[in-house]
Amino acid sequence: MSIPIRIAITGYGNLGRGAEAAISQSPDLELVAVVTRRDPATVTPANPETPVVHLDDVADLQVLVDVMLCCGGSKEDLPVQGPLLASMFNIVDSYDTHARIPEYFASVDAPARDNNTTAVISTGWDPGLFSINRLIGEAILPEGATYSFWGRGLSQGHSDAVRRVDGVAAGVQYTNPTSDAVARARSGERPELTTREKHTRHCFVVLTDGADADEVEQAIVTMPDYFVDYDTTVTFIDADTLAAEHDAMPHGGVVIRSASTADCHDHTMQFSLELGHNPSFTAGVVVAYARAAHRMNQGGDFGAKTPFDVAPGLLSPRSPEDLRRDLL
Amino acid sequence: MSIPIRIAITGYGNLGRGAEAAISQSPDLELVAVVTRRDPATVTPANPETPVVHLDDVADLQVLVDVMLCCGGSKEDLPVQGPLLASMFNIVDSYDTHARIPEYFASVDAPARDNNTTAVISTGWDPGLFSINRLIGEAILPEGATYSFWGRGLSQGHSDAVRRVDGVAAGVQYTNPTSDAVARARSGERPELTTREKHTRHCFVVLTDGADADEVEQAIVTMPDYFVDYDTTVTFIDADTLAAEHDAMPHGGVVIRSASTADCHDHTMQFSLELGHNPSFTAGVVVAYARAAHRMNQGGDFGAKTPFDVAPGLLSPRSPEDLRRDLL
Repeated sequence: MSIPIRIAITGYGNLGRGAEAAISQSPDLELVAVVTRRDPATVTPANPETPVVHLDDVADLQVLVDVMLCCGGSKEDLPVQGPLLASMFNIVDSYDTHARIPEYFASVDAPARDNNTTAVISTGWDPGLFSINRLIGEAILPEGATYSFWGRGLSQGHSDAVRRVDGVAAGVQYTNPTSDAVARARSGERPELTTREKHTRHCFVVLTDGADADEVEQAIVTMPDYFVDYDTTVTFIDADTLAAEHDAMPHGGVVIRSASTADCHDHTMQFSLELGHNPSFTAGVVVAYARAAHRMNQGGDFGAKTPFDVAPGLLSPRSPEDLRRDLL
Repeated sequence: MSIPIRIAITGYGNLGRGAEAAISQSPDLELVAVVTRRDPATVTPANPETPVVHLDDVADLQVLVDVMLCCGGSKEDLPVQGPLLASMFNIVDSYDTHARIPEYFASVDAPARDNNTTAVISTGWDPGLFSINRLIGEAILPEGATYSFWGRGLSQGHSDAVRRVDGVAAGVQYTNPTSDAVARARSGERPELTTREKHTRHCFVVLTDGADADEVEQAIVTMPDYFVDYDTTVTFIDADTLAAEHDAMPHGGVVIRSASTADCHDHTMQFSLELGHNPSFTAGVVVAYARAAHRMNQGGDFGAKTPFDVAPGLLSPRSPEDLRRDLL
């Protein structure tokens, strides 16, 4: 094994802790610092010898770090931290606001090009592995239909939305793919599926004292953007049940390409994930892309990149010769 | 749409005809010639206006062709044609003798580097898409187990072996994944599975007049390398049944990665294919990699490559901006 690639993590939440765990399974990578906006004295990495540095002092790390993993959220953190950190480091992030990816890409591309860094954005599984499978399915089988289903999984954004409703003390939301819709997508009939047909939503809610259950339920199921276009079930539970049965963060889903070649043969491609803990798996993806960011930068490939720009072999710690011999 | 990429096909069997069909679904590609070892007058492409050229005259095509698709077989054709054609053209092939890939890679790499061409070898689905999924699974989730299952599918090599047995007039062989083994691989228990546990083989055989069914069955099920390590069923049928029920070439399979992150969460990744016609799908893959070969060559990336070296975006006719906006 050659000299390890030196990694730092900015943001020590679920994703940052997952990245730390993933690095511990990767002998070719070395965690050299955790970066935080909080008081560094209040942050204790799993390995307490890992230095914790305030974000204000992050420039001091430039000589020590090969790749910075940006583990903040897509809404508030990354739009600021991505461009800032890309001006100083090779970065990898899991920016996942699909509609704003072009804008975010441009905001990171400019500082990365100006400073000869490589910034791989929107890694993870969707965007990320699911995106790659959507692209490959369409490129190989141009005449057909692509379906993305998510779940059963805990949705952070929808859980947050539920918790903002008056009368809700706590709660979580699961997204469930509709088994009938998945079966039809797999069948080769290539149905057009509406939003309502594809997924259902299930909320588990703890009420505040004196809250009216009917009013809370109505406020949830009619909420624009989040719930009104879905069949939503609201189940009221107590706080103990919430803690006992809903503290995991499972997720997953499937991308299906159903298509016909010009010689009238039908084909189905599927890529599916069942994840015990969404942030842990996402962190595994981010960490694998750190190798790619480092190698692309060493090869002079600067600027913003996405998983579409990264050859699979760059994700592996193994040499091209070994990969061809053992995995091709 | 810019100027189409000019494609030629060497070898007009099942794979070559599939490539021709795939090109017809791709407005960014143009088929400019079919190359054959046979008398060109005996070969009629689906579009009869496509020129047919003898392999001896293939050098004449150099100024007309951007990428040559090598659609010959891995046993006899590609070891000769791959290095020859890579000395003159960017090439894509589906070389699939796993054990000899390093040797074949080297044999193509040298002429490609000497002549500034780009040669993408071993595309298709295994090697190819399955290989990519084995690599990505291991890179993202380093501590776990990977399983590849094939079938239900018609195996050309095993069908040929059956047909070489004395007393066999005709026949086909299907490879079937064992449902119990697939279920265990998916379950997270991470079993060690033997060859016999993973797949069964089913032969449908038409006997020659007067052949002894028991002797033929014994000769098949005890055949070294091909059948002795498997539970093999031999079913005797007549020629009409063979023609009516076994003329399709379905195939498929699944790659499963079952693994745990260091924070003790379990995850399962799966990539599966159900193919109505194996050569048609493989041809779709080969044709998509033609775009990559052309683009990598234009970018000065010469020599032999495999699917591990090709960024997914290079497979698509769409621009990076469109892909980021629509598929990421």
